[in-house]
Amino acid sequence: MELYLMRHGIAEAQVGSQTDAERKLTKEGRQKTEKVAQQLVAGDLRFDLILASPLVRAYQTAEILIAAGLSSELEQSDLLTNTGNIHKWLTDWLEPRQYSHKTKLALVGHEPNLSNWAEILVWGASKGCIVLKKAGMIGIKLPEVGSPLGQSQMFLLIPPRYLS
Amino acid sequence: MELYLMRHGIAEAQVGSQTDAERKLTKEGRQKTEKVAQQLVAGDLRFDLILASPLVRAYQTAEILIAAGLSSELEQSDLLTNTGNIHKWLTDWLEPRQYSHKTKLALVGHEPNLSNWAEILVWGASKGCIVLKKAGMIGIKLPEVGSPLGQSQMFLLIPPRYLS
Repeated sequence: MELYLMRHGIAEAQVGSQTDAERKLTKEGRQKTEKVAQQLVAGDLRFDLILASPLVRAYQTAEILIAAGLSSELEQSDLLTNTGNIHKWLTDWLEPRQYSHKTKLALVGHEPNLSNWAEILVWGASKGCIVLKKAGMIGIKLPEVGSPLGQSQMFLLIPPRYLS
Repeated sequence: MELYLMRHGIAEAQVGSQTDAERKLTKEGRQKTEKVAQQLVAGDLRFDLILASPLVRAYQTAEILIAAGLSSELEQSDLLTNTGNIHKWLTDWLEPRQYSHKTKLALVGHEPNLSNWAEILVWGASKGCIVLKKAGMIGIKLPEVGSPLGQSQMFLLIPPRYLS
């Protein structure tokens, strides 16, 4: 199975009584995310499902991926907010679904969570040594059998700069 | 300092009395490498120097990067052949040059060396969990002070599929 961990695009600053969860993508953030999505479509990437954090900037990012044709399935999960825990996501969300090993899932969320999750999957622990830009994406291949923790492979780490 | 580790493009099979070192890029290998180089130029990437393995398929890959305008400086080093050792490269090649921390170097070589080198720089040891495709590239940021071993960051891991 392949996991694609995508960080939301550039978001507006928090103003007035707005909560952090309500921050929207800026115009630039939308445009960069759209270009990334188009380039991924051109590379023949498709997801069986996009799972997004419910925070507006992440959910809007996921909607852009859907609009570009990267998937027709969009769900949201509180496990992808910026306090999300990968162990809980694996046991509570992923394992019960029993996806086939050919499944490609995109998770749209936040930093430093996503790069930490990637490190835990690939190296078994996180020490903050992966740089994931806004609207950037990490690609992880999970093993067909056994725990993915420290047993996965990384095949993609792409900043939007080279996808526009 | 930033290191860009690039794997040579698709090469022909070894035939007749030809040695492995003499294998050239195929037409497809040249074309894919050219597209990658163009996309990197479009992303405003430039290298202060490209250091290539002397094996023909790697040196030809480096020449394509030069022709695309990614650098005007090309050298070759036996330390980048497929028996190259990163510790030797660091002490014998990199350290004596005393490059500034703004230097961007591209190293064009072979697998599994390059992804092993990346893992040693970022995580201190290699266990074969980075997938680097032909004509793909890894981007590593070295720390400004101290040993880069296990102290570097990865910001790029890009297969040619998304750069063409």
